[in-house]
Amino acid sequence: VAKVDETWQDAERRMRELGDLRRVVGLLSWDQETLMPPAGAAARARRLATVQGIAHERLCDPAFGAALDRLAEAELDPVRAACVRHARRDRERARKLPTDFVRRLAAARSRGVQAWKRARAENDFAVLRGPLEQVVALTRERADRLSEDGEHYDALLDDYELGMRVERLEPLLCELGAALRELLDAVREPAAAAPPPPFAGAEFPRDAQWSYTIELLRELGFDLDAGRQDRSPHPFTSSPALADVRLTTRLFPDNPFSGIFSTIHEAGHGLYEQGFDPAHEDLPVADAPSLGLHESQSRLWENVVGRSLPFWQHELPRLRAAFPEQLATASVEDVHRHVNRVTPSLIRVDADEVTYNLHIIARFELELALVRGDLEVGALPDAWDDAYRRLLGIDPPDHLRGVLQDIHWSQGLIGYFPTYTLGNLYAAVLWGQLRRDRPAIEDEIERGEFAPLLGWLRERIHRHGRVLDGEELIRRVTGRPLETGPFVDYLWGKFGPLYGVARP
Amino acid sequence: VAKVDETWQDAERRMRELGDLRRVVGLLSWDQETLMPPAGAAARARRLATVQGIAHERLCDPAFGAALDRLAEAELDPVRAACVRHARRDRERARKLPTDFVRRLAAARSRGVQAWKRARAENDFAVLRGPLEQVVALTRERADRLSEDGEHYDALLDDYELGMRVERLEPLLCELGAALRELLDAVREPAAAAPPPPFAGAEFPRDAQWSYTIELLRELGFDLDAGRQDRSPHPFTSSPALADVRLTTRLFPDNPFSGIFSTIHEAGHGLYEQGFDPAHEDLPVADAPSLGLHESQSRLWENVVGRSLPFWQHELPRLRAAFPEQLATASVEDVHRHVNRVTPSLIRVDADEVTYNLHIIARFELELALVRGDLEVGALPDAWDDAYRRLLGIDPPDHLRGVLQDIHWSQGLIGYFPTYTLGNLYAAVLWGQLRRDRPAIEDEIERGEFAPLLGWLRERIHRHGRVLDGEELIRRVTGRPLETGPFVDYLWGKFGPLYGVARP
Repeated sequence: VAKVDETWQDAERRMRELGDLRRVVGLLSWDQETLMPPAGAAARARRLATVQGIAHERLCDPAFGAALDRLAEAELDPVRAACVRHARRDRERARKLPTDFVRRLAAARSRGVQAWKRARAENDFAVLRGPLEQVVALTRERADRLSEDGEHYDALLDDYELGMRVERLEPLLCELGAALRELLDAVREPAAAAPPPPFAGAEFPRDAQWSYTIELLRELGFDLDAGRQDRSPHPFTSSPALADVRLTTRLFPDNPFSGIFSTIHEAGHGLYEQGFDPAHEDLPVADAPSLGLHESQSRLWENVVGRSLPFWQHELPRLRAAFPEQLATASVEDVHRHVNRVTPSLIRVDADEVTYNLHIIARFELELALVRGDLEVGALPDAWDDAYRRLLGIDPPDHLRGVLQDIHWSQGLIGYFPTYTLGNLYAAVLWGQLRRDRPAIEDEIERGEFAPLLGWLRERIHRHGRVLDGEELIRRVTGRPLETGPFVDYLWGKFGPLYGVARP
Repeated sequence: VAKVDETWQDAERRMRELGDLRRVVGLLSWDQETLMPPAGAAARARRLATVQGIAHERLCDPAFGAALDRLAEAELDPVRAACVRHARRDRERARKLPTDFVRRLAAARSRGVQAWKRARAENDFAVLRGPLEQVVALTRERADRLSEDGEHYDALLDDYELGMRVERLEPLLCELGAALRELLDAVREPAAAAPPPPFAGAEFPRDAQWSYTIELLRELGFDLDAGRQDRSPHPFTSSPALADVRLTTRLFPDNPFSGIFSTIHEAGHGLYEQGFDPAHEDLPVADAPSLGLHESQSRLWENVVGRSLPFWQHELPRLRAAFPEQLATASVEDVHRHVNRVTPSLIRVDADEVTYNLHIIARFELELALVRGDLEVGALPDAWDDAYRRLLGIDPPDHLRGVLQDIHWSQGLIGYFPTYTLGNLYAAVLWGQLRRDRPAIEDEIERGEFAPLLGWLRERIHRHGRVLDGEELIRRVTGRPLETGPFVDYLWGKFGPLYGVARP
């Protein structure tokens, strides 16, 4: 036992050092996205490469491997065992990817992002085609290196949703797609006939939006002594430390709800980060088990809570205090209807809760075909438009509002999109359990009491970090596996009454 | 030669990696001072320790030492030779300070800063005494470890002003002190009799101050695509990259000139950083030869340029556009007199150009006595008050406005204060040469043409980095050594006419 303790201490020191370096990379990246002056980009890329190179070297140190191997044979408590499991896996994957390959992939991703920006500026997919072909080819090579046989896409899924497999994901999404199209067909006409809200056309100054979102963060329980909010073109959350969690939002003067829901969404991520056990900080377990589970927190707060009637019963008077003239005649029902308007649209990030996952299903089908080699990058724009016609019944008028809208593929994030939908599914499963555990939860929200909700999430989800894998954690909390039923029930429960349609 | 080239490439790679890590530490520290939420402090300290620890380990790598030793024997161009010289020196000093000692010193400094803050909050030197004794003891031990014999203080000076020695600095400051007291005696009465400016008591909103300082930065030639300005309680400059130079300023509604001169001061530092040869970025030569030389740039811009009559002839109309009512009746002469008011005061950072260096001389005498063991920390408050009576003729009413005003000693910056005065001396020497080289320089400033001044500094000083040592560089540019004459002449040339007194 003394020997094991000694080995653990050596391994723990190395894990914590790697944790430090990972968080340093996080801060450098956060700064790059929010504050860095444009001319600083080249030097920043070098700094990142240096720190990541050192982390890679430390991770691959044979002495670390030997310590982890010894610990894998030993009797450890669940936290230590999970740390060893994650560290071994990280190490194994790192060793399968030679430095030279990692550098080539990073360069291709960086060229991909540049080309994507240019392609968008010129509304011309041809600009992106060559660089994207390279990214796809290297991503396939990466999958090859990580797993010798089987489905390439599975190896990519493992980056984001550990243990998820195409053979499980595909039927799940297929079933979900059918249910969503049924719901969409039912509500499409009444939704299209809904009148515009009374505040349509009003202007909402950014300063007042900003102050309101900061107050809202406080109200939800986000600790502003252990975090901050800034602005960026694409909202995101980054955690230089568990007690230094940084959200960004973006504000539009013609639409305050965009910024409000960005803030709530990122707060969902941020509350999760602030909720990991501080004793595990810088260890591999102080993280979410998967991106899908991380996304479940942002979507639970943004959609299930933030787009609910009880939430706006509490929140509208506060928002009206910030915008007394603009919202003078708006009722809670006006706002609730406005923030839940269902309409098949071209842009994923603007989509409502019903159509959102159809955008994801389109992307999943396309990226799976790309990775399998069933679809060429050159044929991607047409395939995109076909998918939108088939799934959403609309026709992108140009590539800017079509295949060029997301940055993900250009920067090598292939296999990532499904995590958004998994987040919605996890959120609904959790919400179902929460309502069983706390039948008064909606009354509490209506009174602006968010502490019981946060407390439940802290206790059941947050503090566990990734001691367990994602689906295992959900199963412990709810007794059920990941499934589409609770999400579809939740959607019908909200949109059926909202549009006066009965579930078939 | 092929062998030397190969060795150089290996050493260069290591130098650039160390440069990356140093800049990463810089960004972590900048963020800590400006943005980091308070609860992030503990984790940030760990990140910094980890990155600094890795840098220390890389610097001490015997293979690096062997490469540097081989290069020290070889024929190298001046840039490479300087890189090798600096790297060897850094390495030698790092190896003399064991990791355990460095950690103890860092911990003592950190406790010193905490105690200083508490001592200020309670206006009680007793709170600081113990922690400061530890800092002084460990600083003396550090000097001991760095140089086996001779003056301890010399080893500390080497941290900030490489090659400077007490036996040279002490007579320089002594001579300067006598000249300053002569000037102060001459102007004290007319200065005290000067009427307050017409804008006394006006309010200058922070937003308008901020916009004006940003425009001012552009005007002076600071590249805002390769830098930025933020706010912090204590203005400073940090460079995550030569093309990412970050200034901070602080704004007071009752006094716009405080923020303006902070901005100009930090711009002086920032223009220097933006002016190093980009080809040398991340090599040891892309830095100032000394803090004194760095400070010469901030003081040349802030005082020699920014507090001059020609500057305000150009600038007052622009400032008046930002504050039309507040400055409606103010003349250029009013502003010039106001920003050059001489008065013996208690607080160093608020001091005018005549008395400023008397504050420094007081600190130099005290810290030299502390390091030599001629003064106990317990006797420091009384010694402080004595020095202020003797040098400035005033009596601190409490320690807050006395010995507790500066953070430097508490955080182990002992031997640092003289660099402020050296900066003033260097600035005056450079200004004298500039006027000889460009007799029309003051006309250019009056027309708001700062590019010729910046161009001269870039060519003569900035682009050389620290290929040469500080005094050697000054000697190449001016043909003269570091001396007090030009600075004293400059002061008499400004303050004699301003207060109508003749030089004895």
